[in-house]
Amino acid sequence: RIVAEVERLLALPKQDDPLSGQPDFAADAQRVSTALETNGVHLAGRHILITAGPTHEPIDPVRYIANRSSGKQGFAIATAAARAGARVTLIAGPVHLPTPEGVTRIDVQTAREMLSAVEQALPADAAIMVAAVADWRTADAADQKLKKDGSGQPAPLALVENPDILATLGRHAQRPALLIGFAAETQNIAGHAQAKLARKGADWIVANDVSGDVMGGDANTVQIVTTSGIETWPALPKGEVADKLIAKVADVLTPRSD
Amino acid sequence: RIVAEVERLLALPKQDDPLSGQPDFAADAQRVSTALETNGVHLAGRHILITAGPTHEPIDPVRYIANRSSGKQGFAIATAAARAGARVTLIAGPVHLPTPEGVTRIDVQTAREMLSAVEQALPADAAIMVAAVADWRTADAADQKLKKDGSGQPAPLALVENPDILATLGRHAQRPALLIGFAAETQNIAGHAQAKLARKGADWIVANDVSGDVMGGDANTVQIVTTSGIETWPALPKGEVADKLIAKVADVLTPRSD
Repeated sequence: RIVAEVERLLALPKQDDPLSGQPDFAADAQRVSTALETNGVHLAGRHILITAGPTHEPIDPVRYIANRSSGKQGFAIATAAARAGARVTLIAGPVHLPTPEGVTRIDVQTAREMLSAVEQALPADAAIMVAAVADWRTADAADQKLKKDGSGQPAPLALVENPDILATLGRHAQRPALLIGFAAETQNIAGHAQAKLARKGADWIVANDVSGDVMGGDANTVQIVTTSGIETWPALPKGEVADKLIAKVADVLTPRSD
Repeated sequence: RIVAEVERLLALPKQDDPLSGQPDFAADAQRVSTALETNGVHLAGRHILITAGPTHEPIDPVRYIANRSSGKQGFAIATAAARAGARVTLIAGPVHLPTPEGVTRIDVQTAREMLSAVEQALPADAAIMVAAVADWRTADAADQKLKKDGSGQPAPLALVENPDILATLGRHAQRPALLIGFAAETQNIAGHAQAKLARKGADWIVANDVSGDVMGGDANTVQIVTTSGIETWPALPKGEVADKLIAKVADVLTPRSD
């Protein structure tokens, strides 16, 4: 019975998950842990704040605007940080992922809820903002289901800008010592990331190209954009991106004495 | 290891699934099957076409408009129909559900893809349109990720009406003998359903009230609206709604000789 249940659960379709096909992070965790320990990465006593997943912005009781994000990269980073000994707070939008071991998880739906949860989780030594937060929400979410009016010409959907969580942290009285943003781009990747770095007051931007097959593939090619330059990493599984990023965070927060 | 994996998979969070907390249909299937067999329901040789789940309408490569729908009611109906002996084609929007045994499943993302798949699956003896199809899509899905323009005043999102799958079937040259629509409503449930019945050219509308706690609860209260009146069913698990509906379909397609 149990084997049949495993097979049923493993057969669950993932066709609406743009990051399906990524490596399995539960299986990956042991490898990450070993690699971090081998390299002497430790974040004991540090508080790392991580956001992950999309946000859902309601249009009416049955409709919403969403971002394509499985949350896997953010959850992998939370896993790596916890295994490196950090206290980890993970603010997660709506995703289908288990909570990594040793991680405090807070679930939210909208950008405003995510910002509120982030501010409540401060202070933190580092904040890694991986979530694909909706730039806009509807101006007035309707209490009742919107109906077609028969004209065939639906009214345009009025939008307002959401709060910018990364920029809010960048100028916050309790700004973390290390503030890292993510940028999913489809064009001019490094250029957009450099502009974002300055505009948001972040220390690093992890830029990744989500054009083409990247969102459905096994590997992620990222560039780490800082004020001192651009570091381009090779195509890596998301688990290894998490591993390298947490090692780099530890280098800043806990310089190795060797 | 297998037990740990089952526990990990069973612990997968469901917080963005508005129908989480519904009964488990794998566990329910045996009961449904027994009930149908006990009551002599059979649909052998019949082709039943079912849609389920939401549709996702792209705004740009990373954003989309979605409906809240887990697909569970439609999948439960497909399960019941297959166990009653029908040939079942299930056109599914993006959901996290396993394919019921003996069901031919076709996965789609948008309303237009769903309509195309439905038309290709014809002819059918009965069509049960359970999917929460988006009424609107964006007028022009962008090829590149839309950026904030710095004004703080995003442009409204221009929408156009999607094709109406139920109404298209209602006037189709290959209209199924029995055409059933679903209506998720938050107010004036029966009134909206009666109007929809006439407007769409359907035989029955299964109306359910999605205001309040219904979407997150274990039970579903539906009304079956036909030209001859309204039948109100008690609050039932989704599996039992499927069971009763398929028995009612069989009564029409395969009148019992007892």
